[in-house]
Amino acid sequence: MGIDPGTAACGFGVVVLDAGSLRMVDAGTIRTDPSDADGVRLRQLHAAIRSLLAEHRPERMAVERLYFQRNVQTAMTVGQARGVVMLAAAEGDVPVDEPTPNEVKQAVCGNGAADKRQVATMVGRLLGIPLDRIGDDTTDALAIAIGCAYRAAAMPRAVVR
Amino acid sequence: MGIDPGTAACGFGVVVLDAGSLRMVDAGTIRTDPSDADGVRLRQLHAAIRSLLAEHRPERMAVERLYFQRNVQTAMTVGQARGVVMLAAAEGDVPVDEPTPNEVKQAVCGNGAADKRQVATMVGRLLGIPLDRIGDDTTDALAIAIGCAYRAAAMPRAVVR
Repeated sequence: MGIDPGTAACGFGVVVLDAGSLRMVDAGTIRTDPSDADGVRLRQLHAAIRSLLAEHRPERMAVERLYFQRNVQTAMTVGQARGVVMLAAAEGDVPVDEPTPNEVKQAVCGNGAADKRQVATMVGRLLGIPLDRIGDDTTDALAIAIGCAYRAAAMPRAVVR
Repeated sequence: MGIDPGTAACGFGVVVLDAGSLRMVDAGTIRTDPSDADGVRLRQLHAAIRSLLAEHRPERMAVERLYFQRNVQTAMTVGQARGVVMLAAAEGDVPVDEPTPNEVKQAVCGNGAADKRQVATMVGRLLGIPLDRIGDDTTDALAIAIGCAYRAAAMPRAVVR
């Protein structure tokens, strides 16, 4: 399961990697209302992630680690969303990877400097789905999920647990 | 209740403002082990805050809003801690204030540009406690709690609820 963290819009994607072949299980974007208090929105996000974890029981979760934000205030807000997402994973005993955007691009496109369109093209191709069906946050989350699956498959099984 | 958010060290302070007089009820610092996974540490922090809320049932919580961090990565980490603290408050139906450091200093010292030592001196004086008993994170959290209490007392009761 891949997460593109955010409070206003949090993308999620669930994929299965089976015998080298990828399949999308679920994907979408959790949205909260900017007119609600931060705490209310974080609670909705936490509940939505817990519900997705209960439904799909993923082996691992990947939450993108973002170094470059427009400013400190944006980083703080994204951090709050990351915090409740990672809390939900810990509560569900789901191990969490924190790949950088470059690591995700490297895993999905074989190129850590790939642009957004290249990543979207590869996500559509690898999952065998039409690109016009999915939005930006969802595409990013699916890319993170694909990277997570590939990286986990490359690890010794004892480490993946 | 005032919170100086952080994952490695999260200060908390609980004060009562009664007929213009302040009293410290509880204060301390929640610490987590840097060698544990982020999710584990966030879970410990969330549980500790929930437990403090259940024990003290504060009317309000104030979580400092920090604009200036050394870098984006620090802001992200502090944001994660803020996220689970604000989630715990929302789960307990405790209204949350997000004062800036300047607002806290203004409320405690009457000067938004007061330095750390001035704030600590006023915290000790207002609560009638010796300063050497409390550490930095705890002092900051008590200052935030005092600011929250003063600001809430100045609001119309209907808004404070």
